[in-house]
Amino acid sequence: MKQYVFGHQNPDTDAIVAAIAFSYLQNQRGYDTQAVSLGEAGPETVFALNYFHTDAPKVITNAKPDVDSVMLVDHNEFQQSVADIEELEITHVVDHHRIANFNTNSPLYYMAKPVGCTSTILTQMFIREEVKIPKEIAGLMMSAIISDTLLLKSPTTTEEDKLALKALAEIAGVNYEEYGIEMLKAGTNVDSKSDKELIDADAKSFDLNGNNVRIDQINVVDFNDVTKRKDDLMAEMQKEAQSENYDLFVVMVTDVLNSNSKMIVYGDKANEAAAAFNANLDNDMVDLPGIVSRKKQVVPALTDALK
Amino acid sequence: MKQYVFGHQNPDTDAIVAAIAFSYLQNQRGYDTQAVSLGEAGPETVFALNYFHTDAPKVITNAKPDVDSVMLVDHNEFQQSVADIEELEITHVVDHHRIANFNTNSPLYYMAKPVGCTSTILTQMFIREEVKIPKEIAGLMMSAIISDTLLLKSPTTTEEDKLALKALAEIAGVNYEEYGIEMLKAGTNVDSKSDKELIDADAKSFDLNGNNVRIDQINVVDFNDVTKRKDDLMAEMQKEAQSENYDLFVVMVTDVLNSNSKMIVYGDKANEAAAAFNANLDNDMVDLPGIVSRKKQVVPALTDALK
Repeated sequence: MKQYVFGHQNPDTDAIVAAIAFSYLQNQRGYDTQAVSLGEAGPETVFALNYFHTDAPKVITNAKPDVDSVMLVDHNEFQQSVADIEELEITHVVDHHRIANFNTNSPLYYMAKPVGCTSTILTQMFIREEVKIPKEIAGLMMSAIISDTLLLKSPTTTEEDKLALKALAEIAGVNYEEYGIEMLKAGTNVDSKSDKELIDADAKSFDLNGNNVRIDQINVVDFNDVTKRKDDLMAEMQKEAQSENYDLFVVMVTDVLNSNSKMIVYGDKANEAAAAFNANLDNDMVDLPGIVSRKKQVVPALTDALK
Repeated sequence: MKQYVFGHQNPDTDAIVAAIAFSYLQNQRGYDTQAVSLGEAGPETVFALNYFHTDAPKVITNAKPDVDSVMLVDHNEFQQSVADIEELEITHVVDHHRIANFNTNSPLYYMAKPVGCTSTILTQMFIREEVKIPKEIAGLMMSAIISDTLLLKSPTTTEEDKLALKALAEIAGVNYEEYGIEMLKAGTNVDSKSDKELIDADAKSFDLNGNNVRIDQINVVDFNDVTKRKDDLMAEMQKEAQSENYDLFVVMVTDVLNSNSKMIVYGDKANEAAAAFNANLDNDMVDLPGIVSRKKQVVPALTDALK
């Protein structure tokens, strides 16, 4: 019986690549799976897919009636998953995030580690199960680790990510540092995006102590590319926060070369969001020096501040 | 910083043994952990601990202020865990149950597989990480697999459980079939227990589609040992259901040698519980031929029936 494998909505490179890689691994092990994605690949992911001659997975919004059961990668929270997730059986999860708003009726396979990237865990699974990683999939998993760890500079980076990245680069036959800068730059073209596209592209929803919080992240090589559009972005954030009942909408703007961020903040809880980083709002923005990780730095700080 | 490792409330053999084994493994890997338990060991577990010369872990009800962070084995649902679980950081979970009523603020290590016993997963972890299993711990983990799978006869049993059991029996130097029958029999002495002890000993609470459901399991070698006390047990179940607001209280009585069960049922949802097995209540009881697994057979059937 066919199963879909997919990452979170607004897929980043790891969400799409981990689905491709895990689907491949599971098919080698006798499952019948297909990698799909819950949104179009962004420019960084397209760069990686093109470089490694791989087609983007089919985009779906609902999994039924195509399949009855699914495997999740790079996420578990239902509000980040396929629209009809509650009607599906989840047989496998491979992830590197906190666990929340997730439940099943039956036992399942669940592998999570607090590492920088799902593809790192998948690399270990390939090795442990002695399944050879095809060159193209190795290149893609390498791209996912570069993306999630900002070339091993994010505080989410672990020794396991470094080992996996180097092993994959070897299989792919690529200088990962040179390739990585090119790939990260390919993902930072914000001029071509509308305001709405910018605040939606990499946004995820979280329930933080009962608050409905939306957090987007935009990678740049120059903050000014985004901050010069701040007033227009705020207008879009306000519109979306009202229609979706967000208590807080945060747009992290991350300088991928220097590993700093700023955040643009909208919502009833905006002051609490600034206080989470011992700062005050300055023209709707907060400087976040040294902060690049939504998962490891921003979500925990906001969770505490919204208690 | 010290961490506690523990299994679920009303610990069975796997809950206590998996804590001992995982604590040992983690300490070998550089963590500073102590195995504890959330209740006294029952007679089956005491038999195994005595046989393999191991002390029962200290019993706790709260983990603070002794520790700030914990590792869970053989459970994840907060209502089955330590009383102050929501104030603790959970860094690791090793389990073989469904995931429900569980959440964390931060990424963590989570290893679950749909196998018969947590100790099976732990056996694989010892082997993968090349940590030698001490003879006594091998004997205890073997006991846990025998207990959870009723000597490999429960439908929860997988090939992985069989392989692990045989590997452990070899290390322990024990004929697992002979030992297993002695151990299972040691756990079936119900005559020495009060009515209240019987309905509490191996009971777990579940939120099944919004219903507060209590499911106890009593192992026997003769149904009559329990069913002759049915009216007294029902009186205790009624008392407890009222004080704890259970919508349904089920006591599974399982013949461990013949792999059949009966259930005694109390509560507003008693008829739905019988219907879950295409049966009617007969004198507050339902025959469950071939059914021995709370997790794999009873919980899913009740979940469906209570929709």
